Amino acid sequence: MLDSLPPRVSIYEVSPRDGLQNEATPVDLASKKLLIESLIGAGLKRIEVSSFVSPRWVPQLADAESVLTDEIPPEGVRFSALCPNSKGLERAMSVGLKEIAIFLSSSETHNHKNLNRSTERSLDVYEELVALALEANIRVRAYVSTVWGCPYEGTVPVNRALSIAQRLLEFGCYEISLGDTIGVGTPRQTRDICQLFASEIGVDRLALHLHDTRGTALANALVGLECGFQTFDASVAGIGGCPYAPGAAGNLATEDLTYMLDGLGIETGIHLPALVEAGRVAARILHRPLPGKVHQAGLPRRRRPS
Amino acid sequence: MLDSLPPRVSIYEVSPRDGLQNEATPVDLASKKLLIESLIGAGLKRIEVSSFVSPRWVPQLADAESVLTDEIPPEGVRFSALCPNSKGLERAMSVGLKEIAIFLSSSETHNHKNLNRSTERSLDVYEELVALALEANIRVRAYVSTVWGCPYEGTVPVNRALSIAQRLLEFGCYEISLGDTIGVGTPRQTRDICQLFASEIGVDRLALHLHDTRGTALANALVGLECGFQTFDASVAGIGGCPYAPGAAGNLATEDLTYMLDGLGIETGIHLPALVEAGRVAARILHRPLPGKVHQAGLPRRRRPS
Repeated sequence: MLDSLPPRVSIYEVSPRDGLQNEATPVDLASKKLLIESLIGAGLKRIEVSSFVSPRWVPQLADAESVLTDEIPPEGVRFSALCPNSKGLERAMSVGLKEIAIFLSSSETHNHKNLNRSTERSLDVYEELVALALEANIRVRAYVSTVWGCPYEGTVPVNRALSIAQRLLEFGCYEISLGDTIGVGTPRQTRDICQLFASEIGVDRLALHLHDTRGTALANALVGLECGFQTFDASVAGIGGCPYAPGAAGNLATEDLTYMLDGLGIETGIHLPALVEAGRVAARILHRPLPGKVHQAGLPRRRRPS
Repeated sequence: MLDSLPPRVSIYEVSPRDGLQNEATPVDLASKKLLIESLIGAGLKRIEVSSFVSPRWVPQLADAESVLTDEIPPEGVRFSALCPNSKGLERAMSVGLKEIAIFLSSSETHNHKNLNRSTERSLDVYEELVALALEANIRVRAYVSTVWGCPYEGTVPVNRALSIAQRLLEFGCYEISLGDTIGVGTPRQTRDICQLFASEIGVDRLALHLHDTRGTALANALVGLECGFQTFDASVAGIGGCPYAPGAAGNLATEDLTYMLDGLGIETGIHLPALVEAGRVAARILHRPLPGKVHQAGLPRRRRPS
């Protein structure tokens, strides 16, 4: 048990996009930049900074171009933005973005509610979109959501998520992020999902996107580590969730994940005290207590040497 | 991984004591009874209902006798109460209580702050107290706190906790609850602690008392299960913590633990929907949002059949 965990983990930070897209009151540009700069300062190397979804659907992120024009990623930091269609891709290209993220659901009902089209139709759209992106030298990451369960359909056959993931990789996506979108997962289910995907696809092209809706995200992340997963999505202070999933709340908090990884001696390249501070920046920007724990409790006075 | 977990787990519920003892505004007797009855209704069989610590120290639980006179545990349910000294034991005996809990810290500084005496002196007091209790046919459970770390001393040598636990068992305590009092534990540390105690003492006389201060309680519980632990302390809705530990907040929420156990197919005897309701009762009684997640999110519409 815990004897052969990966030596290092890559964290893909989603707070500026997945976190801020749900805010009732849109966050102003200066605050977004402050958050992104705090995250970069803490050592995060992959940050999803905004979304090129239509501003009619997500007005909170209508300033995507401004964010990406104002913020230049320093050497070694990669920005990405959500992108549902060719219009979004054009916007991404107009600001010189080198990576986008596409998204669909393994549940037909959830996909319809979220994207207003079938998963099959989504795949068709994305096949073309990924080709266009790759031609323009833009990397594409893909989210497959509701892998652990759907708010409308309950349990979704995991083979459905697997075949969707395989097609997205065939299109040319470099990484598939598997989502427990409504945070229903428990460890043995997580083990079964992770083992299946690891054996069929390989962990080097997979990520876990865990929600802490029912408190199990870190336990599931631990199981993912034991299955060899090395990439995890997280959101500082646990902000955000899925706006189309009733009852959903709380991405896994980056500082809680990093605290656990740090205690396990797993390298992340993140400076934990600065990340705690970034969580507090998020709380100040949003003017309310946020679910992440470590940014609230702070670090212990002295840690056991790792 | 996860292949040989215990088939059933016993949950020791601490919310009426460890939860309510920290409230700035003491909770009234009727609300305490409502909480205890909700817990019994959800199927909890072991409940620490109050404390016989001096009312000067913990005025919130000054009504311990009333709670224990008014509430009669139904067949199969065991009540307990915290008891620091012979005065407390007398009070427990006066209401016919059949089980008490004693507590001390593996950290000298924490023990002084919490009990105003050395651990050695605490052990002397408890040796006598346990003998008196056993004579009166009262079972004694013991908490050993700060096993994962102390807010004042940092890391505490785990052999200290082990020798304290061994002495308490020699006195006649039936179970030792090992506490991550300030919620600093991470999974590999937890594995090391659990494996040591399991091999030196045996899991049938041990419990884990995990705090979720830094979000790691369920991941640590999972590790405990893998080490064969079958008894876990928890507090519905995650209420309570340790009043003498700066920065400490949040017992592991009973509903979050039970949700995970349920998903793992581990029997608890608890009816999860009723437990979710008990968590909401706690939130109503305390008039504020509480940290437990499942009582907030609710159960998924349909669960994967276990």
